[in-house]
Amino acid sequence: MTAAPLRLGVAGLGTVGGGVIAILQRHAGLIAARTGRPLEVVAVSARDRRRDRGVDLSGYDWMDDPVALARRDDIDVFIELMGGADGPAKAAVEAALATGKDVVTANKAMLAIHGQSLAGAAEDAGCVLRFEAAVAGGIPVIKSLTEALAGNAVTRVMGVMNGTCNYILTRMEEAGLPYDTVFAEAQALGYLEADPTLDVGGIDAAHKLALLAAIGFGTRVNFDAVEIEGIERISIDDIRQAADMGFRIKLLGVARMTGRGLEQRMAPCLVPADSPLGQLPGATNMVVLEGDAVGQIVLRGAGAGAGPTASAVMSDVIEIARGLRLPTFGQPAATLIDAVPARAAAPTQWYLRMTLLDKPGALAKVATALGDAGVSIDRMRQYGHAAPHAPVLIVTHTTTRDCIAQAIAGAQASGVLVGEPVALAIELP
Amino acid sequence: MTAAPLRLGVAGLGTVGGGVIAILQRHAGLIAARTGRPLEVVAVSARDRRRDRGVDLSGYDWMDDPVALARRDDIDVFIELMGGADGPAKAAVEAALATGKDVVTANKAMLAIHGQSLAGAAEDAGCVLRFEAAVAGGIPVIKSLTEALAGNAVTRVMGVMNGTCNYILTRMEEAGLPYDTVFAEAQALGYLEADPTLDVGGIDAAHKLALLAAIGFGTRVNFDAVEIEGIERISIDDIRQAADMGFRIKLLGVARMTGRGLEQRMAPCLVPADSPLGQLPGATNMVVLEGDAVGQIVLRGAGAGAGPTASAVMSDVIEIARGLRLPTFGQPAATLIDAVPARAAAPTQWYLRMTLLDKPGALAKVATALGDAGVSIDRMRQYGHAAPHAPVLIVTHTTTRDCIAQAIAGAQASGVLVGEPVALAIELP
Repeated sequence: MTAAPLRLGVAGLGTVGGGVIAILQRHAGLIAARTGRPLEVVAVSARDRRRDRGVDLSGYDWMDDPVALARRDDIDVFIELMGGADGPAKAAVEAALATGKDVVTANKAMLAIHGQSLAGAAEDAGCVLRFEAAVAGGIPVIKSLTEALAGNAVTRVMGVMNGTCNYILTRMEEAGLPYDTVFAEAQALGYLEADPTLDVGGIDAAHKLALLAAIGFGTRVNFDAVEIEGIERISIDDIRQAADMGFRIKLLGVARMTGRGLEQRMAPCLVPADSPLGQLPGATNMVVLEGDAVGQIVLRGAGAGAGPTASAVMSDVIEIARGLRLPTFGQPAATLIDAVPARAAAPTQWYLRMTLLDKPGALAKVATALGDAGVSIDRMRQYGHAAPHAPVLIVTHTTTRDCIAQAIAGAQASGVLVGEPVALAIELP
Repeated sequence: MTAAPLRLGVAGLGTVGGGVIAILQRHAGLIAARTGRPLEVVAVSARDRRRDRGVDLSGYDWMDDPVALARRDDIDVFIELMGGADGPAKAAVEAALATGKDVVTANKAMLAIHGQSLAGAAEDAGCVLRFEAAVAGGIPVIKSLTEALAGNAVTRVMGVMNGTCNYILTRMEEAGLPYDTVFAEAQALGYLEADPTLDVGGIDAAHKLALLAAIGFGTRVNFDAVEIEGIERISIDDIRQAADMGFRIKLLGVARMTGRGLEQRMAPCLVPADSPLGQLPGATNMVVLEGDAVGQIVLRGAGAGAGPTASAVMSDVIEIARGLRLPTFGQPAATLIDAVPARAAAPTQWYLRMTLLDKPGALAKVATALGDAGVSIDRMRQYGHAAPHAPVLIVTHTTTRDCIAQAIAGAQASGVLVGEPVALAIELP
């Protein structure tokens, strides 16, 4: 091995950081054979110096300050695995870029919010900033979208990208348990973030969707424009009724360029039960990429965990060691366009669940409200009748979200609804 | 755009070649934005100058001789889409490498047989030789294995990589039709190669498996060591009986490194009906990659067709335009090891179908033959009894192929079998 080693600094030694160190130690020879040069950890940084991480850190300099680590002139690549959209993670990444280091990060929140400025900073400095591990763990979705589909106009990007939500929805269906029970189970199992809204509120998955949309459509990453809806209001009834009609409910991200602008939506959706998305079990992730030449590519794998996420980090590090230098979002940051955000602009069928006061004419009023909004009904079903309330399910013909919103407002104004209706788009593969 | 254009020569203007030209014309601006430099077709070559390919070729030099095209000093990348393991394709690729051109090819047969020498020639010349389109069409399987899993020790590579076979097997099950009928249908639909053995005999898929094994395990590509079995002997009975036990039959390639050497096997297998492989419909392809860090990654998409295959070709061309220069099999050709071939070395459960003479003691003789070979029986079933013959199904406990072969030989020697038994491995995901 004659080539100079690629010198690494690793900030953040949690699950993923420990996984990265473990791979670098276990596969030093394999990786050197594949890259043509050895990878060498020079220094590490983390909050707690004494914690046992199951890997030998004695050969590396320990730095308490990740920013100081990022600035060291004896590292080539700064690996940021601390997390957090701002604070030390961002400061350290900025310091690394300002001092000419390439950066690999798993930080979806930081990139979803500051991706444009960080990508610009990287390019100004002649550095690369890569983030395969930020989206869908070990699944090579950034690489596939940026590289494999580079000859395609991307038409749609979809994904189930929060394993915890998919676990909760799958478990509700399989065990016939209500949301609150399964949520509590997931929390007890440690599946949820400290702030569970990041998971069940769809925010974590929305960060990821915003990153994919930027690459897919060549747009400035715009997390604020993602329409986000969590899974908190999905009932076991919704899951059963959807199943009865051949669908499953998934927290699904969908991004597509429409005539009205860029649609970015992270929300529970109905997908056909026999489609790859519908079949996705437990904590698994799946991303569906569509291009005008390639058609549809489906990628499935573990979306989290030490091994899979560290594998993705290493994919980026090895890419740098091999000399591939891509712009963060697949094309120079300055050429990314500012897309007009379009709220659920692509028409789909919708699933509506409403609870009606059980009195004569209630159903007629709802039907009238839909008709007035231009929404026509494909199927309607009144079921399991617990007087004084009558749950009603409606599947509409293809319509827009605006029409659905108008129909719901009309039904609410008519005074026959109890509680808030649930409205879920049906997303076809 | 200040960077110099990347100049291309395209040999072979069939379905895929036409698709590549179409993408280059349709997405010139998009691709230039993504690569930072324009791509420019300089010259093309194909057999029939007059055929209408649905794309405008008037701006390109036409060369009758692909070898002369490959030697032109005004091209940077030679794109070989003629096919054929030897002959003009190989001569042209060798000429391109000898004169310092990078090469992109979709030619699985050529690489499965001559991959080692061509990879060496490319490296000696300081050129790259890439072949994403050779395996599983538009699915980025070469890229994923070479790059995304570069930090993993690969443990197993599996795939359904011949769409025609998957179409035939799926159609047999769905329509309840025998093999011969569906084979004739597929032929009438133009799904089969001129020599159908390439498809239904498993050869085409085995070419692809040999390429994946080389990358995954860092071994010299060894097509001759692939154990190949076609789908010709799969009966509708096999499909029904497998379904009844919760399995589907797929022409599945499996490569794994075992204690006894490298196993490479392309054969009909039973896979769980509810697994991603079991759910794979029609002409779709699926590749499953397993690594010690990432776990299991499943990739699904169109394995053939102008758009998907051209998309994969363009992925390689754009990779070259962006400056990534990888060795053909992911590490220098000289460092690839010569693996000992191991015939179906990893023990699995097996499905056996035998037809017995309907006479007393026949079943006992078969059971004895299995026992003598050390094969124990998980399930056995005698069914649908058309005297004088009795079909018997056996699912064994985990055992090796050698034991299965010995058991079958013993049963045959006992004189109670009619025709050839069918033996299919059960491959678990």
